[in-house]
Amino acid sequence: MKRIKIVVQYVGTNYAGWQVQKNEKTVQGEIEQALFNLFNQKIEVFASGRTDAGVHAFMQVAHFDCETKMPAEKIFYALNAHLPDDIKILSSCEVSKDFHARFNAKKKTYEYNFYTSFVNLPILDTFCTKISTNFDFKIAKKACKYFVGTFDFRSFCSQNSQKENTVRTVYSAKLVKRKEGFYTFQITGNGFLYNMVRIIVGTLFDVGSGKIAPKDIKKIIDAKNRNLAGQTAQAHGLILKKVEY
Amino acid sequence: MKRIKIVVQYVGTNYAGWQVQKNEKTVQGEIEQALFNLFNQKIEVFASGRTDAGVHAFMQVAHFDCETKMPAEKIFYALNAHLPDDIKILSSCEVSKDFHARFNAKKKTYEYNFYTSFVNLPILDTFCTKISTNFDFKIAKKACKYFVGTFDFRSFCSQNSQKENTVRTVYSAKLVKRKEGFYTFQITGNGFLYNMVRIIVGTLFDVGSGKIAPKDIKKIIDAKNRNLAGQTAQAHGLILKKVEY
Repeated sequence: MKRIKIVVQYVGTNYAGWQVQKNEKTVQGEIEQALFNLFNQKIEVFASGRTDAGVHAFMQVAHFDCETKMPAEKIFYALNAHLPDDIKILSSCEVSKDFHARFNAKKKTYEYNFYTSFVNLPILDTFCTKISTNFDFKIAKKACKYFVGTFDFRSFCSQNSQKENTVRTVYSAKLVKRKEGFYTFQITGNGFLYNMVRIIVGTLFDVGSGKIAPKDIKKIIDAKNRNLAGQTAQAHGLILKKVEY
Repeated sequence: MKRIKIVVQYVGTNYAGWQVQKNEKTVQGEIEQALFNLFNQKIEVFASGRTDAGVHAFMQVAHFDCETKMPAEKIFYALNAHLPDDIKILSSCEVSKDFHARFNAKKKTYEYNFYTSFVNLPILDTFCTKISTNFDFKIAKKACKYFVGTFDFRSFCSQNSQKENTVRTVYSAKLVKRKEGFYTFQITGNGFLYNMVRIIVGTLFDVGSGKIAPKDIKKIIDAKNRNLAGQTAQAHGLILKKVEY
């Protein structure tokens, strides 16, 4: 029995997220089906973490165990033949039995892409969220530093989450102007709570529109109250950029 | 009767190109249907030129005539409500009766995006073509200058075309490295023959892989023989960037 680590890229648009769900098309479900087609074994795949419905991944990491004589480095190629166009395995390699894609992940980086416009721009809409033109980049940028550090992020966690420990460390958070009216927010942390990145982004939208002052971010974190933070930004602007071990 | 000029952005993936065809979903067809829904008039839309099946447009220009009291600058907004997510009108304005989106176009700029990889990358695949990793950017770049000038581009025109005059002027042609393994070819001309940009790109692929020497481009142009140029590159890497009047 070998443990195989894979790096997966996917466009989340057509999936109900990573995790297998009954009667829903999911990324995990498609990969497990491809593994079944390839190896004729029922194999469970473990990712570094779930991504929500509509969220994309540039480099998601996952692992699984299988019985095979196929060289580990060739598995990704064979698997891709059984996967749809919007999910592809970028690489595969054998790892030690104590490697776990989720428990060993040390850092994760997410990006959130958005643009300000009166009109939806079809070319951008798959990977970017359109927001109001009432967005002051320089002010929103000032808010980013308040997210960096080790905090109880309960204010930035969906109330549907059952997580007991809501303390997380954010190593960096920055907002970059890519073109006039086109922005990327990038955040790296040791892990993220359910909807945490999307709620942080929704709060940055409120900072950019003047509803929340940058320095109030600290108060919102301290309050540990989801109602004080902004709305959960739409899923399709979010992409899991990388996972570090 | 007013003549209205519109700027249109679309993702060509789901369309059989710009031009109306029987039993096919086309961009022109969708816009004419939206105009019918909005104004209850059968209105024909004229673009700066057709785009092929699968080709995208960042800023296509078109015009149409209609009877309406709606201010011209508001028409785009009303039209968008009747259009699918992958086609949106970015602006509308009234123009003089002698404006014609096709006959008055002075310059067109196309971009072709491609990447070198062993594996398809789903995040890029909507707008970029995957090519072999055997591609030397520096050599392909050297070939670009040979396309600039006024030439008979018969060698770079689909043999299905019935165009009699195959002389066109290319004002600029450049290949840019956006990231390692990710490239954009940009070309501006007074007009392009059927498949001309895609055949030029296919020929650049052959230059990059060593099949054709950069200086042989001149010979290929002079020969006026389609068989000497490269293959027609895939449609989905191509995007009509802008049209100038």
